[in-house]
Amino acid sequence: MEVISNRHEIYARISHERHSGRSVGLVPTMGALHAGHISLLERSREICDVSVATIFVNPSQFGPKEDFTRYPRTLEDDLAKLERAGTDFVYVPDSHSIYPPGYSTYIEPPAVGNRWEGECRPGHFRGVTTIVLKLFQLIPATVSFFGRKDYQQALVIRKMVDDLNVPMRIETCPTLREPDGLAMSSRNRYLTGSDRQQALGLWHALQAASDKINAGERRVSILERELKQTLNDHQIEQIDYAVVVHSETLEPLETVESSAVILIAARVGTTRLIDNLLIEG
Amino acid sequence: MEVISNRHEIYARISHERHSGRSVGLVPTMGALHAGHISLLERSREICDVSVATIFVNPSQFGPKEDFTRYPRTLEDDLAKLERAGTDFVYVPDSHSIYPPGYSTYIEPPAVGNRWEGECRPGHFRGVTTIVLKLFQLIPATVSFFGRKDYQQALVIRKMVDDLNVPMRIETCPTLREPDGLAMSSRNRYLTGSDRQQALGLWHALQAASDKINAGERRVSILERELKQTLNDHQIEQIDYAVVVHSETLEPLETVESSAVILIAARVGTTRLIDNLLIEG
Repeated sequence: MEVISNRHEIYARISHERHSGRSVGLVPTMGALHAGHISLLERSREICDVSVATIFVNPSQFGPKEDFTRYPRTLEDDLAKLERAGTDFVYVPDSHSIYPPGYSTYIEPPAVGNRWEGECRPGHFRGVTTIVLKLFQLIPATVSFFGRKDYQQALVIRKMVDDLNVPMRIETCPTLREPDGLAMSSRNRYLTGSDRQQALGLWHALQAASDKINAGERRVSILERELKQTLNDHQIEQIDYAVVVHSETLEPLETVESSAVILIAARVGTTRLIDNLLIEG
Repeated sequence: MEVISNRHEIYARISHERHSGRSVGLVPTMGALHAGHISLLERSREICDVSVATIFVNPSQFGPKEDFTRYPRTLEDDLAKLERAGTDFVYVPDSHSIYPPGYSTYIEPPAVGNRWEGECRPGHFRGVTTIVLKLFQLIPATVSFFGRKDYQQALVIRKMVDDLNVPMRIETCPTLREPDGLAMSSRNRYLTGSDRQQALGLWHALQAASDKINAGERRVSILERELKQTLNDHQIEQIDYAVVVHSETLEPLETVESSAVILIAARVGTTRLIDNLLIEG
């Protein structure tokens, strides 16, 4: 495994792989790797000749009051995990080379980023689309892998790539969960013992609403009441949103008809968590 | 010369050229080609193995009250000129394939686009950066050529490419002029006989200010007064700006020290013209 921090070098190496006819899979991360990230690399190894990960805690996607400074940095551990996963290249830039002084070009994200995370975290998706577009220029991969845990993010990236004609395929991979159902997230490290129990409320709420849908309930107002009730039952009171929406546009629905997605964002202790469940139409 | 309208096809063809080790030069245009455009293609032919032009009147860079609908469309004539210039590929997309329904991702241009054209034409550079970034994804050329006549545009594109890590070299080429000095522009077709005489005022103003600088005048206030006086002498009264600014940042100057550029935008009849002159430091 080669660890590269120079942007000209990573571009030259990956271009060379592509020109030599090899397919390249890319897994962009902010480090603090867990089994969810590793599952993306396994998928890359399954379908691509060469697999690349990036580790960069991207400042532009954090709001001024968010957890950029306390976000976990575990580079040594991350590199060991990537090596074990059979990663070929890891790109670890420093912030200065990504956002040099005078940096001023950003991607205005597509409309699918307007609601939900877009409303709760102003500027977040602008930071995400900007760093992802930059990484896609520096690392001209065949396909890039994103976790479904960040459901709206995956839609935003897919739509950006489509709108801007970026020659990259986007593959969204299933959310990995702890045995009790908690979605894996780098932010789970923030959870105290009691937080950890409360945090299960997100998964239980998704399950409760999904059970109701399977039992025939189609009214979104009823389903959203169920979501909130289950979250409250787990002492989760700071709910940013807990909604059942169209799975592609993320627009609100009155009834669950074709394909929908349940999206939750809530605060557990000092930690903001998100989770979701896709309801196949 | 091959004329291609399908975006997948142009991408495949140009990627193939690059993968085969050939250098590719790109000249993005809005058609209505004149000798200035052709000089960009000649430069491309001089230094690249393969030369590509694009013709697309980009709606997103025109304001609602601007000349999008009346902008000259002369496709047959343009293709004949490109063929004579030895162009290998011409990409002529339709608007629907570039901006399909639901299109919503844009490039927020770098700060060098804030003043001058950025102030006079709100949204213009956002449209320019968006279409240029898209073309750079669809046509992975080695180098792309832009005319210095659109001085600020060339800086905006260069900075965008740098900020977003787009693997493309930008080359800015000299402004071509009519024998009497009028900068070549597709919009010169709008000029009536009397407009045409007035329009020379831009060039004469640039020359007058340049002469003063060569004679030792360094005070920008004096130089800008000279610019306005010369424009007024040509019955040009609607001046958007006529300024001497820093050649890289485009920020106002008090005195001409190192390298500066004179920028003019003014209305002649119903036609808005721009021109500029670089003062080497």
